[in-house]
Amino acid sequence: MKVRTDLALEERESFDGSGVEIHGVEVEESCDEERDVRLTRVKIVSERGAREMGKSRGTYLTLEAPGLASPDEDYHREVSEMIADLLRELTGTAESVLVAGLGNRDVTPDALGPQAVSNLMITRHLIREYGREMMGMDGCCVVSGIVPGVMAQTGMETSEILQGIIEETRPDLLIVIDALAARSTRRLGRTVQITDTGIQPGSGVGNHRGSLTKESLGIPVIAIGVPTVVEAAAIVYDAQGNCEKMPPHLNGMFVTPKNIDEMIKQLSFTLSEALNMVFSETKKA
Amino acid sequence: MKVRTDLALEERESFDGSGVEIHGVEVEESCDEERDVRLTRVKIVSERGAREMGKSRGTYLTLEAPGLASPDEDYHREVSEMIADLLRELTGTAESVLVAGLGNRDVTPDALGPQAVSNLMITRHLIREYGREMMGMDGCCVVSGIVPGVMAQTGMETSEILQGIIEETRPDLLIVIDALAARSTRRLGRTVQITDTGIQPGSGVGNHRGSLTKESLGIPVIAIGVPTVVEAAAIVYDAQGNCEKMPPHLNGMFVTPKNIDEMIKQLSFTLSEALNMVFSETKKA
Amino acid sequence: MKVRTDLALEERESFDGSGVEIHGVEVEESCDEERDVRLTRVKIVSERGAREMGKSRGTYLTLEAPGLASPDEDYHREVSEMIADLLRELTGTAESVLVAGLGNRDVTPDALGPQAVSNLMITRHLIREYGREMMGMDGCCVVSGIVPGVMAQTGMETSEILQGIIEETRPDLLIVIDALAARSTRRLGRTVQITDTGIQPGSGVGNHRGSLTKESLGIPVIAIGVPTVVEAAAIVYDAQGNCEKMPPHLNGMFVTPKNIDEMIKQLSFTLSEALNMVFSETKKA
Amino acid sequence: MKVRTDLALEERESFDGSGVEIHGVEVEESCDEERDVRLTRVKIVSERGAREMGKSRGTYLTLEAPGLASPDEDYHREVSEMIADLLRELTGTAESVLVAGLGNRDVTPDALGPQAVSNLMITRHLIREYGREMMGMDGCCVVSGIVPGVMAQTGMETSEILQGIIEETRPDLLIVIDALAARSTRRLGRTVQITDTGIQPGSGVGNHRGSLTKESLGIPVIAIGVPTVVEAAAIVYDAQGNCEKMPPHLNGMFVTPKNIDEMIKQLSFTLSEALNMVFSETKKA
Repeated sequence: MKVRTDLALEERESFDGSGVEIHGVEVEESCDEERDVRLTRVKIVSERGAREMGKSRGTYLTLEAPGLASPDEDYHREVSEMIADLLRELTGTAESVLVAGLGNRDVTPDALGPQAVSNLMITRHLIREYGREMMGMDGCCVVSGIVPGVMAQTGMETSEILQGIIEETRPDLLIVIDALAARSTRRLGRTVQITDTGIQPGSGVGNHRGSLTKESLGIPVIAIGVPTVVEAAAIVYDAQGNCEKMPPHLNGMFVTPKNIDEMIKQLSFTLSEALNMVFSETKKA
Repeated sequence: MKVRTDLALEERESFDGSGVEIHGVEVEESCDEERDVRLTRVKIVSERGAREMGKSRGTYLTLEAPGLASPDEDYHREVSEMIADLLRELTGTAESVLVAGLGNRDVTPDALGPQAVSNLMITRHLIREYGREMMGMDGCCVVSGIVPGVMAQTGMETSEILQGIIEETRPDLLIVIDALAARSTRRLGRTVQITDTGIQPGSGVGNHRGSLTKESLGIPVIAIGVPTVVEAAAIVYDAQGNCEKMPPHLNGMFVTPKNIDEMIKQLSFTLSEALNMVFSETKKA
Repeated sequence: MKVRTDLALEERESFDGSGVEIHGVEVEESCDEERDVRLTRVKIVSERGAREMGKSRGTYLTLEAPGLASPDEDYHREVSEMIADLLRELTGTAESVLVAGLGNRDVTPDALGPQAVSNLMITRHLIREYGREMMGMDGCCVVSGIVPGVMAQTGMETSEILQGIIEETRPDLLIVIDALAARSTRRLGRTVQITDTGIQPGSGVGNHRGSLTKESLGIPVIAIGVPTVVEAAAIVYDAQGNCEKMPPHLNGMFVTPKNIDEMIKQLSFTLSEALNMVFSETKKA
Repeated sequence: MKVRTDLALEERESFDGSGVEIHGVEVEESCDEERDVRLTRVKIVSERGAREMGKSRGTYLTLEAPGLASPDEDYHREVSEMIADLLRELTGTAESVLVAGLGNRDVTPDALGPQAVSNLMITRHLIREYGREMMGMDGCCVVSGIVPGVMAQTGMETSEILQGIIEETRPDLLIVIDALAARSTRRLGRTVQITDTGIQPGSGVGNHRGSLTKESLGIPVIAIGVPTVVEAAAIVYDAQGNCEKMPPHLNGMFVTPKNIDEMIKQLSFTLSEALNMVFSETKKA
């Protein structure tokens, strides 16, 4: 039995040193030493690899950037540019995109998505009313955004809400931003995962129950996540090396840093800047 | 030319004293003198009446309660009960209801709907998972809630978002809560309008553009509104008696009281209590 | 070595079963079985008791009420009344009180104090301008309130800010409301501690550094606290029974429940109601 | 009788065209045509000038920048730099500064000050603990910040709270940021006033009652303000040219634009950036 992680990177690490190579899982690492950023590409290419990893087939890009923990604005801008490049790699061309900020805006470590969407350049209504040309938005994508809330607030699955909105407004692409659970507290706020597999049931700080995938929604789904919590059970597991005596009252508890407000504020801005670079900035000749 | 009002009551008043009786508009007034509450029922029963009033056919119930301006909790509870009775009159029986809090949560006088929804008892997910009986909710309605945001935040019409969610989750009834524009500052925060006509384009503090009606959405729509602003043009009109020299830069400006934060906090609570009484409290034998 | 707790109750429990009786610490328990509420009075009456407990001399009243975890409004009102009675016991007569909501309003589990102060009936300015009689406030206390923020936001110690405000406005009594750290996750949100010893350095979710006591501030200080987090180290300690291999990166991490937003919303209301009962409600003949 | 304005610029304009020159008031204008920014320096140098202007003796610098209404980040950064230059002109050298964000964070047009302080680089606690050198902050100012709240929330005058904090923490300089009332809606969000006279009773959106000046507080006070509202009475006055038939219920009402949330978000950031440039950025050789 293992403790849950939303990071493909951590899932793969749990096989490290075991001498086991996982069939159907390709891993590629690169490093930007100047900026102290490590990029890992995990591709799960077979059903067997998916089963062993407990993650869907697809591509998982992970940036590890310890500097994200510092408030250095210039550094955050550089990371925004890297994220923008990775997004362009996964999204291909889309005329219109819906960005959904998942999570609970009233619980600080779960507010990453809602805060990121609040900083997005939203253009769908402007382009529909005035046209791209008049707005000086040639080459820009039509961007809409939604903060659906969590089930305790709405009584509805996030997947139900997004499904309905997608059917009504017909974007080419869905991007979901979500706060994730990692296994290691050392990753909190310093790792960005981007994947073309969307969101699986049980993932995220708030444990989404319905899947948000191309299969379920009919359009490509890119998920951008940053770990902001660790399940309380994970640090007990770390300490005692097993889950045998896991206290049941740790269910529904998470571990998060005390400066989580600053972390969320900076990261949400870094992510929204990356999205603005990809979708809203006019392509220069 | 007249200044906009979202209140049927004010629309009708503009005919008062003119000696004109409006065909197809029935008005009935009653008064609870002990509580200093006046109830006006305006029924627009013909197309001609609708045209002259500039409002849709249907029933408009308006409570005028000057005491709403005070922070007296007991008084607010009594008004919640009156609103609950009026809601029961209009809603009939519904097994499931979606409550939408319209408006912009970041603009205080427009935050009435979002704040009211945040105090609602949301039960859809609980009843679906555990059943009414196990939750002790026999006789309760399935309640879901959504705060769709405004077009500047989402790029989408409120009507598009709600249409999609309704098609996906199939409630029997939609209730929308919205901050309204009145003509008279004396009505701000002291008047509650409940109507079975839903929301018309151009209404609300934020000027919704798509209609939210039974015709457009396929299910009955009850709108609950409280005026929290007056168009800036209205007070100029009041002062000079005409609109001839209306300064153009007053467009997009509204008038609101300085203690609007307290007003919204109390009124949103009063409305959510009324909804909880109607939909979530177990019917006692 | 022990993991920190802000609860005198938990500190005393760590001696239980050890056969050790602590000199200078008096304990008295009572139980309201109907409401499932347990009240423990811990009095530390000697310096030796204070040293062994690691807490200041004074009285610590602790209510344990598992029902606080449920959203039952009637039950919360009953607990508010019990808290009001305990407050009256500790505060004696005060003509004027300053209530400080400590903690960080942007970090959900630390927002208890700020949210409680936002629901208080603030009367100082009204009584100063119009007099008690005209306001119908005979027998009421003059109430002022402040949310000083945390050091990362202000650059100042909470103790510096409150000291200055007290010297300028001269209240008879300071009440501080603060989110606490417990040792056991089972206490989170279900325990209320009221003490006449004020706040010690190192206490609270945000670890206040300056003391807030009668000695340092010159007026009596009552502290009301509810545990909303457990130090991450505590659950590791619980699991492995010692602190030998405590991972250093757990410093500055805390454990909190996923529904912390609802917990804070309800508890802050329960506390502010208790304070309103004690200080702002007119004494009836 | 005239309608209130917090802008010295508007006060002076009311004498324009009357052929009257005001003794003791010096006015100097300059223009940055490329950026479409106009700078007006009003110096009130005599008591007579102060009396006629209804403003204190001192220097009032006013930037008019219509582009502030647009969301262009680069433009806002340029304005931040201009504001920084003006601040340096008025503040001289200060080792330590307290920045107070006046106003009500729960009323959108009054939240300018609170939001600006939340984006400030706060350094006092860091420099006190680690020293300037270790923090790489040579040449930086010690910065502390406070959001005191408004009288309806605290029961205290802002002046009482700040007086107390200043006596306790002894900054060299107080900077207050406040949302202002203008006479003309055309100035809303497009004008920045910086003055070395501090804050006078009756100024600001929330009408501060105590003065915040060098005389009352013992240290220099710089006030930075942006008009975000117009008194409701002002637009009626504009329309009918006099105040004879001013409806009394317009008291306590203000006029503000519908997109006030975006305006406050951008302007608060522009102001905090300017302050960070002046006080927290290391002087480069």
